Amino acid sequence: MNELPASVKVKEVGPRDGLQAEEAILSTEDKLRLIDCLAEAGLREIEASSFVHPKAIPPLADAEDVFAGLERRPGVIYSAIVPNEKGADRAVEAGANEIQVFLAATESYNQNNVRMSVEDSLEQSARIAEIARGADTPSVAVLSVAFGCPYEGPVAQERVLELSGRLIELGAEEITYGDTTGMAYPTQVRELSEAYRERYPEIPLRMHFHNTRGMGLANVLAALEAGIDRIDASVGGLGGSPYAAGATGNISTEDLVHMLHEMGIETGVDLEALIGCAQLLEELLEHELPGQVMKAGICGHLMEAKP
Amino acid sequence: MNELPASVKVKEVGPRDGLQAEEAILSTEDKLRLIDCLAEAGLREIEASSFVHPKAIPPLADAEDVFAGLERRPGVIYSAIVPNEKGADRAVEAGANEIQVFLAATESYNQNNVRMSVEDSLEQSARIAEIARGADTPSVAVLSVAFGCPYEGPVAQERVLELSGRLIELGAEEITYGDTTGMAYPTQVRELSEAYRERYPEIPLRMHFHNTRGMGLANVLAALEAGIDRIDASVGGLGGSPYAAGATGNISTEDLVHMLHEMGIETGVDLEALIGCAQLLEELLEHELPGQVMKAGICGHLMEAKP
Repeated sequence: MNELPASVKVKEVGPRDGLQAEEAILSTEDKLRLIDCLAEAGLREIEASSFVHPKAIPPLADAEDVFAGLERRPGVIYSAIVPNEKGADRAVEAGANEIQVFLAATESYNQNNVRMSVEDSLEQSARIAEIARGADTPSVAVLSVAFGCPYEGPVAQERVLELSGRLIELGAEEITYGDTTGMAYPTQVRELSEAYRERYPEIPLRMHFHNTRGMGLANVLAALEAGIDRIDASVGGLGGSPYAAGATGNISTEDLVHMLHEMGIETGVDLEALIGCAQLLEELLEHELPGQVMKAGICGHLMEAKP
Repeated sequence: MNELPASVKVKEVGPRDGLQAEEAILSTEDKLRLIDCLAEAGLREIEASSFVHPKAIPPLADAEDVFAGLERRPGVIYSAIVPNEKGADRAVEAGANEIQVFLAATESYNQNNVRMSVEDSLEQSARIAEIARGADTPSVAVLSVAFGCPYEGPVAQERVLELSGRLIELGAEEITYGDTTGMAYPTQVRELSEAYRERYPEIPLRMHFHNTRGMGLANVLAALEAGIDRIDASVGGLGGSPYAAGATGNISTEDLVHMLHEMGIETGVDLEALIGCAQLLEELLEHELPGQVMKAGICGHLMEAKP
């Protein structure tokens, strides 16, 4: 095994990517409780909401209220995902600390997701990035279905790298590769990570894996081995798959942090407090979440042997 | 990433290790349907039952009937786990193709599991191995809680290696390291695998991971990277954790095979047929199983994009 990073920057995406996939709509107050629980547990990057049209994603229609209600803790980046210029204006106005633009690596997925071509999404992203720059707000870019597309299958590495270059030209300070439907596998993650780092050594790469087919943490391991030290995850594993009923979505933040800590990799997160957030979220949503460490317990917590 | 093995020998443990953890008791006929489905799907090693005292593990009380009813396919090893001499005699009589002895790497776990010391279990294993040898039946050994014990915590590498050496002296033709309660993590798997292979280069090492804390396939990846090419798994992820309600147990065979095939590693298994076995098992047990690929579908099966 190559040397693994000494620490990993875990970005919590539950309040946006996770809740977006939920049928139940949490109240603004409950979202703020969750976000503050996560910040209190030591997460330093939290995707707090999305400035899409309020009717497009009802669970996130209260983005302004969420940002207005945040108890902003020093050192925490409260991030927002933004689909267009109007959304960028709203995000800046709301005081988002980071703006995320997004597009898909394939035409079919982009068309199905946002009803425009990848080229049009790139233009849109350029205008969003300009608004962010004007407001001195960092912008980052998420490339979804970067490993595989449910309509087109595996995505050519060169296509992903070329789109990354276009996004970097627009001013993205970080690129995220999203495995939106859980199609990535470890050797592919490793190869793509290495190719990216060779081509764009100065712009950090972040990985956003879904555990849809059980490979989530294996893909994390492959990314770590390729030197990637920025990983997205969702508290409790919140967020199902829009393409397969009963399938899980995002990797669970506490399962990720648990594995990293077992391997001696620092995250700055208090794992027990984080499990508390996952339990809070189960209470708020009134259903079980797929996170596993919250059910099985932390490895280090031993049991009494029967006498 | 180091070069991964070109092929992996997957051993199916659902009919024994999986069913043992189930409350429901399958009929002998249903077990035989499941076992034959697995053999038909291409699995070449199947842990078919256990010759413990019939009252000790009621779901496996029909071991003789299972072995008598097997439609033995050429090239398939139907294996049995055996706790004592009486069990060994029964397994030989029933025509098991392989006898598995087992003991725990820690005193507390062994005492709690079989009410004897590790030293006594080793003596027992010696007598079982002798019976197997007398009957020309290969014997292999499983060392449970080899990575961590729920009572004692992490297990020292030297302890595991020393016990492995004792088991090899008894004639074990293969050693399995069992992560019985899902406490292994990738860097540990890697280090232990490498240390074993250096110390005992001639006796193959097999890994038996549980996915209790979500690290199952990440641990498989670490093992593959250390050159391990024998992995246990359970169809559908059958088999919960006796130590944590709601937690999952064995890694799922179809999720394992799916990941291996995505990485270009051969298994000889027909993945679609295997998913059919997992679906059959859900029908037989009348409840959902934790396997994920059976819910999300094989990566290569693409969807129609909306026009």
